[in-house]
Amino acid sequence: MYGLLEAANTPLGRVLNTLLMVLILLNVTAVIFESVAAVQARYSTWFRVFEAFSIVVFTGEYIGRLWVCVEDPRYASPFRGRLRYARTPMALVDLIAIAPFFLGALIDLDTRIVRAVRLFRVFKLARHSTSMDLLLTVVRNEAATVASSLFIMVIIIILAATGMYLIEKDAQPDAFQSIPQSIWWAAVTLTTVGYGDVVPVTVVGKVFGLVVTVAGVGMVALPAGILASGFSQELTKRRARYELEVRESLSEGAITADQRKELRDKAEDLGLSAEEAKLLLRNEATARTGMLCPHCKKPIR
Amino acid sequence: MYGLLEAANTPLGRVLNTLLMVLILLNVTAVIFESVAAVQARYSTWFRVFEAFSIVVFTGEYIGRLWVCVEDPRYASPFRGRLRYARTPMALVDLIAIAPFFLGALIDLDTRIVRAVRLFRVFKLARHSTSMDLLLTVVRNEAATVASSLFIMVIIIILAATGMYLIEKDAQPDAFQSIPQSIWWAAVTLTTVGYGDVVPVTVVGKVFGLVVTVAGVGMVALPAGILASGFSQELTKRRARYELEVRESLSEGAITADQRKELRDKAEDLGLSAEEAKLLLRNEATARTGMLCPHCKKPIR
Amino acid sequence: MYGLLEAANTPLGRVLNTLLMVLILLNVTAVIFESVAAVQARYSTWFRVFEAFSIVVFTGEYIGRLWVCVEDPRYASPFRGRLRYARTPMALVDLIAIAPFFLGALIDLDTRIVRAVRLFRVFKLARHSTSMDLLLTVVRNEAATVASSLFIMVIIIILAATGMYLIEKDAQPDAFQSIPQSIWWAAVTLTTVGYGDVVPVTVVGKVFGLVVTVAGVGMVALPAGILASGFSQELTKRRARYELEVRESLSEGAITADQRKELRDKAEDLGLSAEEAKLLLRNEATARTGMLCPHCKKPIR
Amino acid sequence: MYGLLEAANTPLGRVLNTLLMVLILLNVTAVIFESVAAVQARYSTWFRVFEAFSIVVFTGEYIGRLWVCVEDPRYASPFRGRLRYARTPMALVDLIAIAPFFLGALIDLDTRIVRAVRLFRVFKLARHSTSMDLLLTVVRNEAATVASSLFIMVIIIILAATGMYLIEKDAQPDAFQSIPQSIWWAAVTLTTVGYGDVVPVTVVGKVFGLVVTVAGVGMVALPAGILASGFSQELTKRRARYELEVRESLSEGAITADQRKELRDKAEDLGLSAEEAKLLLRNEATARTGMLCPHCKKPIR
Repeated sequence: MYGLLEAANTPLGRVLNTLLMVLILLNVTAVIFESVAAVQARYSTWFRVFEAFSIVVFTGEYIGRLWVCVEDPRYASPFRGRLRYARTPMALVDLIAIAPFFLGALIDLDTRIVRAVRLFRVFKLARHSTSMDLLLTVVRNEAATVASSLFIMVIIIILAATGMYLIEKDAQPDAFQSIPQSIWWAAVTLTTVGYGDVVPVTVVGKVFGLVVTVAGVGMVALPAGILASGFSQELTKRRARYELEVRESLSEGAITADQRKELRDKAEDLGLSAEEAKLLLRNEATARTGMLCPHCKKPIR
Repeated sequence: MYGLLEAANTPLGRVLNTLLMVLILLNVTAVIFESVAAVQARYSTWFRVFEAFSIVVFTGEYIGRLWVCVEDPRYASPFRGRLRYARTPMALVDLIAIAPFFLGALIDLDTRIVRAVRLFRVFKLARHSTSMDLLLTVVRNEAATVASSLFIMVIIIILAATGMYLIEKDAQPDAFQSIPQSIWWAAVTLTTVGYGDVVPVTVVGKVFGLVVTVAGVGMVALPAGILASGFSQELTKRRARYELEVRESLSEGAITADQRKELRDKAEDLGLSAEEAKLLLRNEATARTGMLCPHCKKPIR
Repeated sequence: MYGLLEAANTPLGRVLNTLLMVLILLNVTAVIFESVAAVQARYSTWFRVFEAFSIVVFTGEYIGRLWVCVEDPRYASPFRGRLRYARTPMALVDLIAIAPFFLGALIDLDTRIVRAVRLFRVFKLARHSTSMDLLLTVVRNEAATVASSLFIMVIIIILAATGMYLIEKDAQPDAFQSIPQSIWWAAVTLTTVGYGDVVPVTVVGKVFGLVVTVAGVGMVALPAGILASGFSQELTKRRARYELEVRESLSEGAITADQRKELRDKAEDLGLSAEEAKLLLRNEATARTGMLCPHCKKPIR
Repeated sequence: MYGLLEAANTPLGRVLNTLLMVLILLNVTAVIFESVAAVQARYSTWFRVFEAFSIVVFTGEYIGRLWVCVEDPRYASPFRGRLRYARTPMALVDLIAIAPFFLGALIDLDTRIVRAVRLFRVFKLARHSTSMDLLLTVVRNEAATVASSLFIMVIIIILAATGMYLIEKDAQPDAFQSIPQSIWWAAVTLTTVGYGDVVPVTVVGKVFGLVVTVAGVGMVALPAGILASGFSQELTKRRARYELEVRESLSEGAITADQRKELRDKAEDLGLSAEEAKLLLRNEATARTGMLCPHCKKPIR
């Protein structure tokens, strides 16, 4: 059973994983379409049946995972290990996915909120994708810098809003009545969304708006740029880690078949393509071994 | 004939290639202007003649390529080789470019669809450009990560839409009637398109909209950032591959004229500029200059 | 007292720093909400009391910092050192944060301007964050290039505005009356804000608008791209600086516990993660493993 | 005189250069404000005088540069050298800056066009900035790839426009009358400008619009990403070129004072900061010289 749920490399485990993914996606779709009055009116029974079925499956999955987690050396102790597992982010997501139903049985909850919370089931998908794992690593790595750049963005928005409030207040008392209202314009403009519902009309306001927009666009695009650069950095780091493994293997002479397999597994773990891994290996090997002294024909290293 | 169609380095082959490219671009232009009623009314005969001419040329090209593909060692067998060639993406594009015409002779097709399909002829151009090849390689390399980031983007859009639906539903029952309708607002906002046809009007809605936009802008720009970073990575990889070639050439002593030519061809294949290739070569060579062989104490190069 | 204000690694200093940060954020919030007429009417006394309290604290902080700055070897001289400290950007920010209040006591200032200037107190936060320091370094490094790309952007906007002015002048005499007015359209379009308040209506204008937008989008996104790339470059540079330290430590043989601690501090200073620093260290060490000394034929490390 | 115009490192030459830059910027400002009817009515004499003065100065500058260019070894021959100089991009820009005036004396030109052409004088600035030179190098390097990505963008826009034309044609016969008209919507949406003047209204149209936007945003941001990545690549290349110089200097043993000065000049030419140049130099030096065999204490290389 542990193999079924946690190890995706058995055929049956893979089938179960795929079925769970399909069920999650169906759940998201159901929540979206349930909000359409006409659809809800017509298929309300189906929606209720489907929800009951989902609750049964997800509750089963949650209990199942809690049951087998002790097979994992990290959560080996029967009670405290299970408790530690229950506090991992993925286990919490699994719990939140089913909690509103059981809570709703005890106390009276707003149906709309209950339905919306069901959407969080989508996070259960994070367990299944390796490139999503790479993305989340990057976001976690760059969290501090992204937060700083978001904070700078918020400051720029506040300053721009205050400037525009002082300038346009008299010409458009409705739209620029106060700084909070002016922030709506500043944020919509500086994120380049630009709805056009609030626009400066005075000459001074337009000039100020232009200067702020042209100058601010760079700062506002920073979070995206930092994430992309962090992405590139993460791949460089993983490549360096692989080179390290290669070098350690090479230091004892030629690479054995075992080491070769190990390196291949490592490359896959790090998300490097087979082609790139091979290139790095050959590159490292040539750097070390290919040199012969042109005079005495002996290898230099 | 093989030389004419597949090898672009004969003068006649180059002329034929250019003529085909011009014909493809004229086809796209024709489809676009045919949709203007006034133009269509006036030049309909010309459009029909031009389409007939294009069909003849493209059919000829398709048969020609299918005929000569056996010259390529990969598709050497007369029958199975041709079949394998016919299933390559480029051959399929060539087929789709002419198929609607012949299908239309057999069964009744919607004229508008037939015309729109003609637009796909533009993909025939992919055969002709080397930097487009580099772009497609990058897109293919990063496909999994871009897909993941698009998926995250879709999830953010759905969550933002659900939040806004709960908030604005009562104030704007028309625009935020259901989650699917709310998704229109969320996608238009988070991609920073911002038409302005649907805008939150309540204070809570505006605050929620601001938070979502400011925070979401980073995630939404990820696909572009990943592609750009992938672009940079691909160039680094190609540079590494070239350095490997250089190193292997250098390992046997000074570089011969033959090797020099080979390296130049390789650099061109990899899309490195001549200037950069020379720099990398000199860099690699100098890295070794000044080194003395530890055995015979003579300078190595 | 120096420890309290300038060195954040004493427990009391950390508490004081946090309290100051909270006060700054409360000040920003106050300025924003004071601009809402209803809030201002109701809580005007509270706002005045809070402002008085803030002035007292920030004046105390300013005098305190000016008092203790001589402990720093850079500003050691009692008078000229303090004067030099008073001219550092951070000290100026501290001064501007309180100056309007004291100026307002002497001469008559516009209340709205005084309030807006209070917002600049937010810059006092720059003292407290390390990743904001990294961001500011990048902005300073790339200032010349970003300025150039902003300048190119301004030129593109002016050229696009002039073109559209010549084209749309007759069709929309109101919106494209002169080049300055046309600049509003060009800037709003090329920064991709796109309010939609001014839009070309003639066919030629639309075609020109499309060409300018599609071609210009690349140039306009350059500042952001340059900043992001500068970000990546800065991290590379810091990594190189760390590698240099590692190499110098390694050149004298095995790394001692002292050196190890020093390297760890250095990595933190440069903003490298512990994990990355360790990887770089191991990488550098392994690069040498396996090498034999050419003189005595023993392994070097 | 050559020193005055072409070598900016004499004090008088620097003053002249600055005056020319100011004059160019004043010219651009004049063209912009001349288009405002009220300003033109009031200051028309001043504008005419200023234009006459500018023509005199720029004509003098053009003749002067043509006169002294033979001092440059590249254009040494009195007649053919001058002709070759006259065909360089910068000399052509200088010519275009004054040509309309002299042409206008011969034939009758549209005043508005003559005025707009005056704006091109802004390109004369390119001669004066080093970081603008770096930007232009990047744009030139990446021209082929950027062109390819712009071409892909145009194809995506055409395909999206055709799809939307087929879907929305019946619901909005005015806005989506033909593919060319539909292209306006597609370009405005996919560049994320989003004026909001044309928006799909049918459910199918909205779904198609969402899919196209979410998927297309990545492709459309490619040119900017490629330029930014090219920027990063160019800096890496320049750093490699500098490292090469360093290595060649080091290969003959310790670096002399002369070589040190040469390297500093080189670093400045390549646009590397002094700090970075020093870091690269130290890094390279340590890689080579700092290693001692821990056993026999002799230097390894």
